[in-house]
Amino acid sequence: MADQYAQTPVATEPPTLPALRWEEPPEGPVVVLLDQTRLPAEEVELVCTDVPALVLAIQTLAVRGAPLLGIAGAYGVALAAVRGYDVAEAATLLAGARPTAVNLGYGVRRAADAHREAVEKGASDERAGAAALAAARELHREDAEASARMAGRGLALLDELLPGGGHRILTHCNSGALVSGGEGTAFAVALAAHRAGRLRRLWVDETRPLLQGARLTAYEAARNGMAYTLLTDNAAGSLFAAGEVDAVLIGADRIAADGSVANKVGSYPLAVLAKYHHVPFIVVAPLTTVDLGTPDGASIEVEQRPGHEVTGFMAPQAVVPGVETGGGLPVAPLGTQAYNPAFDVTPPELVTAIVTERGVLSPVTAGAVAELVAGADSP
Amino acid sequence: MADQYAQTPVATEPPTLPALRWEEPPEGPVVVLLDQTRLPAEEVELVCTDVPALVLAIQTLAVRGAPLLGIAGAYGVALAAVRGYDVAEAATLLAGARPTAVNLGYGVRRAADAHREAVEKGASDERAGAAALAAARELHREDAEASARMAGRGLALLDELLPGGGHRILTHCNSGALVSGGEGTAFAVALAAHRAGRLRRLWVDETRPLLQGARLTAYEAARNGMAYTLLTDNAAGSLFAAGEVDAVLIGADRIAADGSVANKVGSYPLAVLAKYHHVPFIVVAPLTTVDLGTPDGASIEVEQRPGHEVTGFMAPQAVVPGVETGGGLPVAPLGTQAYNPAFDVTPPELVTAIVTERGVLSPVTAGAVAELVAGADSP
Repeated sequence: MADQYAQTPVATEPPTLPALRWEEPPEGPVVVLLDQTRLPAEEVELVCTDVPALVLAIQTLAVRGAPLLGIAGAYGVALAAVRGYDVAEAATLLAGARPTAVNLGYGVRRAADAHREAVEKGASDERAGAAALAAARELHREDAEASARMAGRGLALLDELLPGGGHRILTHCNSGALVSGGEGTAFAVALAAHRAGRLRRLWVDETRPLLQGARLTAYEAARNGMAYTLLTDNAAGSLFAAGEVDAVLIGADRIAADGSVANKVGSYPLAVLAKYHHVPFIVVAPLTTVDLGTPDGASIEVEQRPGHEVTGFMAPQAVVPGVETGGGLPVAPLGTQAYNPAFDVTPPELVTAIVTERGVLSPVTAGAVAELVAGADSP
Repeated sequence: MADQYAQTPVATEPPTLPALRWEEPPEGPVVVLLDQTRLPAEEVELVCTDVPALVLAIQTLAVRGAPLLGIAGAYGVALAAVRGYDVAEAATLLAGARPTAVNLGYGVRRAADAHREAVEKGASDERAGAAALAAARELHREDAEASARMAGRGLALLDELLPGGGHRILTHCNSGALVSGGEGTAFAVALAAHRAGRLRRLWVDETRPLLQGARLTAYEAARNGMAYTLLTDNAAGSLFAAGEVDAVLIGADRIAADGSVANKVGSYPLAVLAKYHHVPFIVVAPLTTVDLGTPDGASIEVEQRPGHEVTGFMAPQAVVPGVETGGGLPVAPLGTQAYNPAFDVTPPELVTAIVTERGVLSPVTAGAVAELVAGADSP
């Protein structure tokens, strides 16, 4: 497989448009999203002037990724508040847009709480809206800082686990700047390794059905000039068997109190393969992903998405939950039903470490999770 | 997941066109193939009047599947002989069309040997051609009989391993009537379970990159009225974790002397998942798939296919090795390289049993493989 290491990617300009930004008047107030369903073919911004537009953007995956969903939720509440809509109703709509990512509810709650507290203290509508917006901006900034800290801690962990350098990292789905206020979670660690000259290869799972790996991670890797190779999800086994994977790095959509990790479907099989091949399986996620209210993996609600994502190969922009758009290329016979869970759950015993902005959990136990959440930042 | 068991497929007519047939004059002599790249959208026959056309059909996967490739190879030699072309040259072209499936070389050799023996005995060109054709027909008939025997033996094994009935079987790629002179290998076992009223669900892996599961296995399952559900390859882990898989059944493209099994990429990860979840992993293949000349898994040559099968989501008919057709839907950024092995190798310790027409190997060891190949048929 020597040729897998040879070619360098073509596009090497860093991304120019942020995944999400708030625009003030006169253009705003609006939430502007880089429409992730159009990538990598086109960089198109999607302007959300109200909460229903943002909810649709979340459901159609124009904006996605656990940390970024939290930020989007917070700005969505701020948008409702600033524009004078019912904030409680907006918060309910936003928090329910997707069930698995805990960060979404967290971001919504944080901005809604700030708004409510301001109202309770007798603030004007305008001041209360400003309080919600300030909370969203604060979350945005904190998430960017958390990205940077996770990248540093994750790279230190990699260097410790793999002292030889020349890391060959396998990742699944997308966990870079497109999911974050900063440079992301798992991808940010790979990017840090790349900048430090210690990334030999980023193996990118295409991540069916919606191909976030092929479309988004490959886009971010190319834009950052990283050495990357795309593969079908089912080809990862061959890489493990050939000894071509030094570590698996993934993000998370929810981490239960026992350390179980919900992430994009296909993560759990990688964890089993990693265990079988004695390869570290590392989850990188901010503390907002930890949900102490979910006791264990079995309690995590896994979003089931429409079967036509599997029976037809459609451009993701054509996919709207509950609506058969008929776009794309049908591949299975008419009438074929599909099993299409958006996420799977990896139990803590298969997770080598969870990297957060506050510290690294390893081994992953309920006690360690509780301690990390309760504790102060370690140096 | 109760709903996964509810719906019955729409199309229930059995397949009408054979995967491969030999046509005599006046239409022939020709080899007529059901073009598998057009399924399930259209049932179109592809008429091969010479060996280069057949070689192209093999390389573009219009005809595929280990046992059927053997039959195609034998008829290809017969076609060259009957039409008066150079038989040795035809045999070389055909045998080299795809490297991993051992059956292809076997079928080619069998017809070529029959032809050469006839020539050595002083037969006319016409008689030697008839000998090659007779050898191809014999292989075709034997393969159909082998299918029926494997189906019976495989169902007996399932009933023994899973005494409760109501089998929920996961399969990968396609291994039915489209790969065989009969009803196939692994799929034929599931079909036998269905006819016996003991198949509760056939879980069908879509099988990226060329979607033989979504296109072909779903087609065969629907046509036979089986209860089936399609899934992305990476969703199989969730089914195992939920206890929804009673057994994995797959075919094989080559079985080495030590019992290592080369099959469609994605088979090995299923074997690891099956082991981790204590689920039987069963390989169903005729004896022609066993290659005692290949000592072990590491000696199996694995075909590497073009990266554009992964970087673009293309209708398979647009895929010609070495030719960038530009058809289909590109999904990854321009310049993205891909790792695209067509097969992977499962070591014998992960294989619960190998079902052949002559008997069942379990446990799978080099000694047992040798004994089965050398031995007579067991009752």
